Amino acid sequence: MTYAAPLDDMRFVLNELCDLPAIADLPGYQDTTPELTDQILGEAARLAGEVWAPLNQTGDREGCHLENGVVRTPDGFAEAYRAYVEGGWNGLAIDTDHGGMGLPLTLATAVQEMWHAANLALGLCPLLNLGAIQALIAHADQALLSCYLPKLVAGEWTATMNLTEPQAGSDVGEIRTRAERDGDCFRIFGQKIYITFGEHELAENIIHLVLARAPGGVAGTKGLGLYLVPKFMPGPEGRPGARNDLRCVSLEHKLGIHGSPTAVMAFGDNDGAIGYQVGEEFGGIACMFTMMNAARVGVGLQGVGVADRAYQRAVDYARTRIQSKPLTGGKEPVAIIHHPDVRRMLLTMRALTEAGRALSYYAMAQFDLAKRHTDPAVRDRAHARFELLTPVVKAWCTDVAADVASLGIQVHGGMGYIEETGAAQHWRDARITPIYEGTNGIQANDLLGRKLLRDKGAAMRDFIAELSATANDFAENPTTSELADAFEQSVDELEKATVWLLTNADSDLDAAFAGATAYVHLTGLVAGAWLTGRAAMAAAGNGQHAKFRNNKQLTAAFFAANILPQAGALSAAITGSGSTVVAFAADDF
Amino acid sequence: MTYAAPLDDMRFVLNELCDLPAIADLPGYQDTTPELTDQILGEAARLAGEVWAPLNQTGDREGCHLENGVVRTPDGFAEAYRAYVEGGWNGLAIDTDHGGMGLPLTLATAVQEMWHAANLALGLCPLLNLGAIQALIAHADQALLSCYLPKLVAGEWTATMNLTEPQAGSDVGEIRTRAERDGDCFRIFGQKIYITFGEHELAENIIHLVLARAPGGVAGTKGLGLYLVPKFMPGPEGRPGARNDLRCVSLEHKLGIHGSPTAVMAFGDNDGAIGYQVGEEFGGIACMFTMMNAARVGVGLQGVGVADRAYQRAVDYARTRIQSKPLTGGKEPVAIIHHPDVRRMLLTMRALTEAGRALSYYAMAQFDLAKRHTDPAVRDRAHARFELLTPVVKAWCTDVAADVASLGIQVHGGMGYIEETGAAQHWRDARITPIYEGTNGIQANDLLGRKLLRDKGAAMRDFIAELSATANDFAENPTTSELADAFEQSVDELEKATVWLLTNADSDLDAAFAGATAYVHLTGLVAGAWLTGRAAMAAAGNGQHAKFRNNKQLTAAFFAANILPQAGALSAAITGSGSTVVAFAADDF
Repeated sequence: MTYAAPLDDMRFVLNELCDLPAIADLPGYQDTTPELTDQILGEAARLAGEVWAPLNQTGDREGCHLENGVVRTPDGFAEAYRAYVEGGWNGLAIDTDHGGMGLPLTLATAVQEMWHAANLALGLCPLLNLGAIQALIAHADQALLSCYLPKLVAGEWTATMNLTEPQAGSDVGEIRTRAERDGDCFRIFGQKIYITFGEHELAENIIHLVLARAPGGVAGTKGLGLYLVPKFMPGPEGRPGARNDLRCVSLEHKLGIHGSPTAVMAFGDNDGAIGYQVGEEFGGIACMFTMMNAARVGVGLQGVGVADRAYQRAVDYARTRIQSKPLTGGKEPVAIIHHPDVRRMLLTMRALTEAGRALSYYAMAQFDLAKRHTDPAVRDRAHARFELLTPVVKAWCTDVAADVASLGIQVHGGMGYIEETGAAQHWRDARITPIYEGTNGIQANDLLGRKLLRDKGAAMRDFIAELSATANDFAENPTTSELADAFEQSVDELEKATVWLLTNADSDLDAAFAGATAYVHLTGLVAGAWLTGRAAMAAAGNGQHAKFRNNKQLTAAFFAANILPQAGALSAAITGSGSTVVAFAADDF
Repeated sequence: MTYAAPLDDMRFVLNELCDLPAIADLPGYQDTTPELTDQILGEAARLAGEVWAPLNQTGDREGCHLENGVVRTPDGFAEAYRAYVEGGWNGLAIDTDHGGMGLPLTLATAVQEMWHAANLALGLCPLLNLGAIQALIAHADQALLSCYLPKLVAGEWTATMNLTEPQAGSDVGEIRTRAERDGDCFRIFGQKIYITFGEHELAENIIHLVLARAPGGVAGTKGLGLYLVPKFMPGPEGRPGARNDLRCVSLEHKLGIHGSPTAVMAFGDNDGAIGYQVGEEFGGIACMFTMMNAARVGVGLQGVGVADRAYQRAVDYARTRIQSKPLTGGKEPVAIIHHPDVRRMLLTMRALTEAGRALSYYAMAQFDLAKRHTDPAVRDRAHARFELLTPVVKAWCTDVAADVASLGIQVHGGMGYIEETGAAQHWRDARITPIYEGTNGIQANDLLGRKLLRDKGAAMRDFIAELSATANDFAENPTTSELADAFEQSVDELEKATVWLLTNADSDLDAAFAGATAYVHLTGLVAGAWLTGRAAMAAAGNGQHAKFRNNKQLTAAFFAANILPQAGALSAAITGSGSTVVAFAADDF
């Protein structure tokens, strides 16, 4: 089966939960008319559903192959990527000054969900390109921008992030790849692993952003610089010229996303790969975080996309698979969608997917506010909220995606375990999302260390205050009054865990960080319930048709009654189990 | 890396939680001396670790191939199976009357965990054989037993379960394969799918137990008979003779357990496959349940085995992978086992695996008591407890296994997603266990429908009473006093959910069954905490060395503080969300 973008829900989340009309009214975004928004969503849905989605399963089966230094991506990927470039999709949310369409990131987020849902493997290529573009805009000098940005914004060239080395994964401070000065430029020497779309033929040039030890750089992260290293040196009229001294050594044999080449890259086998410094001499880490932060929300969104794809497939199967008579009687077997345990699985998939969608779009709306709002106080608050929620979007939406895709298999029964069915691929593909762009453990540490402890809980307390205010709104609204208590209780659990962490981290840092993953899950869960409840309220108060209204109310009720009670378990784990984790001796495992 | 059977924990669970000495004292089991037990565990560990385990990853990579009707299993599988047969392992717990060693099932359970941990794919072959042997012993006539049982007990011939057809999965009542009478025997016509080890060359003959519509059988399950259908008709001196009219049509392309051939089988392409009735004319379902129930605990045990294997691999990696400085300071990067989030993952894996081991062995101890105890009241109670826990062992241990294997990937970071590492295989392999031998949804319905509602909660109430009594013991014992409150609360949640289900099932069957999966999880969770706490008490009161004692206490404390709080969430989902599941219209998904 193919993929149909959930346009109704996307529009609803954009307009009702992210207030896209208000964002479209901000200076610089005023071209974003409702008509344009509709047109963009509709056209993206068509490309995603008709061109990208049918290549998802064939791409998985075929995989990528390295032959004489050339990477063959699956059949059809080049054409599908070409259609994306020709449609102008890559520059959707890049500022017009830099050759993009300058539309809100919030809107572009919905569009990106479609690429990831349609074809997670292919969607990775633009995802990394966009991260690199943001890093270049923020840090590169005008000469580099002039030479490279137009091609990257158009998508005619693609970009990669070269960070990881065998001994330097989560800890990039251990990087050994080095840059040597050579006149105005640098020579790069070293090997990088896990380079997504590190080599391919989809575009005529590939621009590698390489984190490497700068000449004279100290050990650790403070001695690192970021270097732009093109596969082909730009020649006259911007055509790719001479080959640079870099190559793809091998491709990884992965559990999933087989359509995406994951390369081991060698730089400087001969004279050194020519590279250009981006940003400050030793400012590689700052550049990396610009790139990473953009990509982190993107990976959370991948989670939402693959979860929705798995949900659509499971619903389709459950509607057509006839098996067993109803529990309540009846002479004939029925479609399994009528069996309560199957419905429970589908509703869980739906509620979690919709919550993830709402959360990731909401986070990007904060980004747009922080970027464009005229009131600096609003900008600052939105910026803090975006920073707070970035690791939550990445970690919660991706862990949820793996769970949702697993339910998708289970709905299929035995068929789910057969690769031809397609459900298993979503599960294999989804499993990378909690790992790359910073494992979810790293996200959890980011939330706890950089986002909670560093500002002594200010941004989190501001968020909790807003959640509490909404709990009151829920209580007073007939659509949400029944879930108000459960929601308020979950906010209390979040507050309790927050206070405990702020109070105890000083005295036992390890015990506090043993609860980091539970804390990122707790935050995601309560934020998801918040947005799910707000969706029910908004649907009731608005011109939505009765079915949509009713479904939003039931989904919110289900989320609050079935999923949200985990808040108590997570809070208990945070406050009660850290000391045991610390006490268990490393040698005794 | 290979696999080292956790002999210390296995012995501890057998002796302290299952009271193997008392079981070994029952009539018929009195040959089971401690020396023999030790010898058996040690020898099995050697065969599993040295012969079976090294073939796990190569078997996955190589897979099975059908060529001209012959199935090629991976290199080494035939020799590994031969070593198992020659060691006499297959008949370990088969009664001596039937050619086995007649040892307790409880002991055999520990041995079986080793086969599954070492090589889940290969372990399936004896698992199904043993299920078939139990069905034959319980239902077949003497002529069939004399002809087939010795070879099956020895493992020289293997057996299969032929149940599923494309339209008849969970609902075997829809089976269309039919038997026609032909003198003293029957002719079988039809096609079966998902036949594990349906065709292979590991043994010289394969005995298919085929569920088919008996001549004159009504529609539904009451018209089904079970037929023994050999691949080769037994010839003179028990050698395989003429080929029967059955063949392997194709093999499935599966997500995991690639070393295990999953066959589509065709019976009766020509004159009909010759088969012999097992049990009553229309008693196929009773025979099937005998076979299934044995296999269900076996599949739960597969979950335990693969979880332990994933745990061992993750610990090994976490000990050797150096990355990032400690949070609490230090100049050098350390092994990641020292980072709190990694320790939290490893301790979660350990606690869940040990709980699953304890639960599955405990269930089989009840089986032994029900079979051999001299007091009929003890037998009855043990039988009811075993019946109650069978779906829990199957569903909880396998869902837990998938989670544990997923944590195993996460501990490895990016390496976890690369197939060569091996962590991904455990996750793919584990994912079948919640599906086959009755999906976990079917297990949940079994627990709720057949085990709880049918006896109006008698067996569950008896279990809860025992849990409550232990809660008091926990409170009074210094080793467990700190976890006593959390445990008691979880027993209360189980009781609350039980009462709710017993009270509400009549008025809204669908809403009750929407909570079936949460109920099987809740039961498994509380039972797991019970055994984990009992383990801590037993280790403290016994001659265990200090480290073992301390680790059992910490593991129990961690289970109670970190994992057990989910009981409240599960109970809330059962009592609070069923009506929403029912209310969401099937057309609106």
